[in-house]
Amino acid sequence: MKISMQAMAVETFVPMLRSLSGVLDKGAEFATAKKFDSAVLANSRLAPDMYSLIQQVQLACDHAKNSTARLAGLEAPAFEDNEQTLEQLKARIAKTIEYVQGVRAAAFEGAEDRAAVIPILNQNVAIEMNGLQFLRDWALPHFYFHVVTAYDILRHNGVEIGKREYMAHVGTYIRPRR
Amino acid sequence: MKISMQAMAVETFVPMLRSLSGVLDKGAEFATAKKFDSAVLANSRLAPDMYSLIQQVQLACDHAKNSTARLAGLEAPAFEDNEQTLEQLKARIAKTIEYVQGVRAAAFEGAEDRAAVIPILNQNVAIEMNGLQFLRDWALPHFYFHVVTAYDILRHNGVEIGKREYMAHVGTYIRPRR
Repeated sequence: MKISMQAMAVETFVPMLRSLSGVLDKGAEFATAKKFDSAVLANSRLAPDMYSLIQQVQLACDHAKNSTARLAGLEAPAFEDNEQTLEQLKARIAKTIEYVQGVRAAAFEGAEDRAAVIPILNQNVAIEMNGLQFLRDWALPHFYFHVVTAYDILRHNGVEIGKREYMAHVGTYIRPRR
Repeated sequence: MKISMQAMAVETFVPMLRSLSGVLDKGAEFATAKKFDSAVLANSRLAPDMYSLIQQVQLACDHAKNSTARLAGLEAPAFEDNEQTLEQLKARIAKTIEYVQGVRAAAFEGAEDRAAVIPILNQNVAIEMNGLQFLRDWALPHFYFHVVTAYDILRHNGVEIGKREYMAHVGTYIRPRR
């Protein structure tokens, strides 16, 4: 009845980041077919006071990178938020996948009990979790929030994507029916 | 470096379903304040060929209920898809939480190795995973997809919600800063 923190974290982040990269490809194809600048999609948002697609992708990447580092007891590299195009966002995703995959399995040893303390700005309080709580109750809901909202921005703008793209990773599990 | 399948599944589904119920409350308040029928929100969608808020909530509930049952080796109860109002959707969520919480911990013993086979309609193939792969690569991405898209539908329509509502469960981890 036991699973590893590394399996749960890295093997969530990597396939879902690849899925995110795949839906950006579909966005770029849509812009080409419809003959509009794909930067319009990159700057789209679902509400005027919500983050744009650019920011959703940056945040998905940062949650993956920073959460992996925290669980592994490492300092995360800082990535500058300077992407303007879908191509640049895909590069950001690739760089994030490379980092997440590069963390040694041994670094996750004991990660479920490692303290995760997140200070709340301008308040004299902090969110204090252990590593399991941090992964399940902080990292994953934040990460999925930005991955799905990026998808929803594209889908809302007419890009032809579906669960086939969002769940691309299940392709590896397909077998002939017995 | 080990965590339990039950902790990962049940303790994701329950807090996020409560968060979903909370954003529906905010939707109902918004409709009352703006004096429109909240059924308009319940029937909203982000694209004409995407599921409505009603369907997103039904699907989030079904992924939580059916995944919990599958991991525990049980047959899931069938819930009829007959909700029309936000109030009825909240009842569906409450019923789902009750089911998920009611499954005995012992039933998850060995769940990570339990085979999960999902036939693909009209094709002679199936998706074959073990329990860990099923939870991480199927149940959680589907579940989060519908929870976040429900949120995005409400947010897109002007409902005043933010990470405070989406991440309501982290409130239990707040401590005075040391």
